[in-house]
Amino acid sequence: MTHIEAIQQWLTKNQLDVAYVSAFPDIKYLTGFGSDPIERVLALFIFPEHEPFIFAPALEVEAVKETGWRFPVYGYLDHEDAFALITEYLNQCTTHPVKWAVQKDNLTLTRFATLKEHFPTMEVAADLTPVIEHERLYKTPEEIAKLEVAGKWADKAFEIGFSALANNRTEQDVAAEIEYELKKQGIMQMSFDTIVQSGANAADPHGAPKKDLIQPNSLCLFDLGVVSDGYISDASRTVAYGPVNDHLKEIYEICLEAQLTAQDAAKPGMTAAELDHIGRQVIEKAGYGEYFIHRLGHGMGQSEHEFPSIMEGNDMVLEPGMCFSIEPGIYIPGDAGVRIEDCVHITADGCAPFTHTPKELQTIPLR
Amino acid sequence: MTHIEAIQQWLTKNQLDVAYVSAFPDIKYLTGFGSDPIERVLALFIFPEHEPFIFAPALEVEAVKETGWRFPVYGYLDHEDAFALITEYLNQCTTHPVKWAVQKDNLTLTRFATLKEHFPTMEVAADLTPVIEHERLYKTPEEIAKLEVAGKWADKAFEIGFSALANNRTEQDVAAEIEYELKKQGIMQMSFDTIVQSGANAADPHGAPKKDLIQPNSLCLFDLGVVSDGYISDASRTVAYGPVNDHLKEIYEICLEAQLTAQDAAKPGMTAAELDHIGRQVIEKAGYGEYFIHRLGHGMGQSEHEFPSIMEGNDMVLEPGMCFSIEPGIYIPGDAGVRIEDCVHITADGCAPFTHTPKELQTIPLR
Repeated sequence: MTHIEAIQQWLTKNQLDVAYVSAFPDIKYLTGFGSDPIERVLALFIFPEHEPFIFAPALEVEAVKETGWRFPVYGYLDHEDAFALITEYLNQCTTHPVKWAVQKDNLTLTRFATLKEHFPTMEVAADLTPVIEHERLYKTPEEIAKLEVAGKWADKAFEIGFSALANNRTEQDVAAEIEYELKKQGIMQMSFDTIVQSGANAADPHGAPKKDLIQPNSLCLFDLGVVSDGYISDASRTVAYGPVNDHLKEIYEICLEAQLTAQDAAKPGMTAAELDHIGRQVIEKAGYGEYFIHRLGHGMGQSEHEFPSIMEGNDMVLEPGMCFSIEPGIYIPGDAGVRIEDCVHITADGCAPFTHTPKELQTIPLR
Repeated sequence: MTHIEAIQQWLTKNQLDVAYVSAFPDIKYLTGFGSDPIERVLALFIFPEHEPFIFAPALEVEAVKETGWRFPVYGYLDHEDAFALITEYLNQCTTHPVKWAVQKDNLTLTRFATLKEHFPTMEVAADLTPVIEHERLYKTPEEIAKLEVAGKWADKAFEIGFSALANNRTEQDVAAEIEYELKKQGIMQMSFDTIVQSGANAADPHGAPKKDLIQPNSLCLFDLGVVSDGYISDASRTVAYGPVNDHLKEIYEICLEAQLTAQDAAKPGMTAAELDHIGRQVIEKAGYGEYFIHRLGHGMGQSEHEFPSIMEGNDMVLEPGMCFSIEPGIYIPGDAGVRIEDCVHITADGCAPFTHTPKELQTIPLR
């Protein structure tokens, strides 16, 4: 059963007339066509009985067809009234759609008001957001295989990055080198801007590489990933650039123990919150709890913002096929930062990582 | 008057209790703090009398402070209930906010329902979207200066790209080279993924560079821009890689005439639709109207998705300080594509471009 067929079954079961998919990443997941036309309208409509259709800017119609989409795709020009056209096409597929399923997490008040104008009798009868989220949560073996390929590219990226560390290079240089070398090998898109942070700069867990030189005898943090065949990788490693002092070694070892403990523990049947706690308590017991200021991990697949969220309060039970990061960190402002991260998928009796770069503290010789 | 003070005045004038800014790019515009925490909550609240505050993920609080934000910023941890905390902080600033201004173009049904739970008496009394859009429409001299710097980097990027064309290189190679050379010079972010398209590949106006080799004796299209000091550039040039035939020269010259005619004509007092028509009719009269399948241009500034939109049906009158692209294109499937684009700002009596790479057809020698 395709993802779209699963939605069709759900519509039938719940006696709904139409599903309006408005979030671009979900359109990509369901159809294979990925695009972000920003303020232009891109939409997917699914019906219980009739075939679905995509509505897209005219200049993207060819690209939709190239993905192998075998149902109708309708284009519109910039000056045309998109929702007037959508109304026409919808009326060809279903008469007087009343019970709508919409993505409440994505549909804006403006867009909703427009729908109401064109379909005065419409009701938001169901929220499509959790239905698609649930569908996305369980990765198929084909998806796992793609995530493994993306993971191999992240390992390659670490290799390039570690080799690029040098006294006369900046964080930005090193990040640029990683992306350039990958692009030369055909990886055109990173899953996010590559992070390289040296010394105290690494204490900002959401920071970007700076023009600062790589600091000798400091920890240097890499967080990176690629997009490969529509699936992402996301991994972090922290290395010593030249020998580092005992304090830095200590926070590294604590973070590593947290990461390994959580990765060893992850298995079907436990909750996301339990796993967060297992990793977090290692850092808390070592006295650095206040420096671990984010959740243990996030779901991933086609993007790094999927479910399950590995955090306190999330009672979702982990099951085979779920994919997420395990990424404890210790961030001491003005001093140093460490983060060690693998993304994994839950297997029948544990979990398996997508990245394999060693996690023991590596010391890169000064140069 | 700061942008925030302008919003405060508007709130007072319209007797509104609070403005909730939820769109990340607008938070950046109003506060200087740019971030995209995706599913996490980042919000700016502005009041008619009381000082505004930012509500952000805990791990971004330091970054907010570093921007020089001189009002409160409140952080929250991943497992905390963001809107319960927001309610507390809001109640410290204003008692029982009833009349809300929200960004209807950005606020989702889910977020709106959450607000309603915490503020049962709230009313969406005004749409904040057009107010901020109007504020963003007129660039100050300081903003124009930043856009000029970003434009110079785009010119630099063309130089790198044209020099990189060679028989044994792919479109992806050339795009990677451009971004790498810029990164080495400190430009860490492109405004969008660099487009390099050779031969028939250029007929897809929203396509990405492919693994295909640069075609000799073909047109090669570049569309690129950088982010510099928070402002973007966006420009397109099409060059001949080796001598090209008369048909290709013809479509190039028609596109160029459309671009130059529109850029010469742009001035205060005309409407966006009129300008679109001036450029479009050149291509239509030459018999290629069906191959120009997008609007003439889009607004730009901190992003490439601002107003005014230069298209049929848009009666907005152009005024000094407005910034937008002028980018006619001719796309013949299976054959070739041409696009020539400068972004400009409207001056007292015309317009001035941010990019200066020559627009006459350049022929790059084969190598």
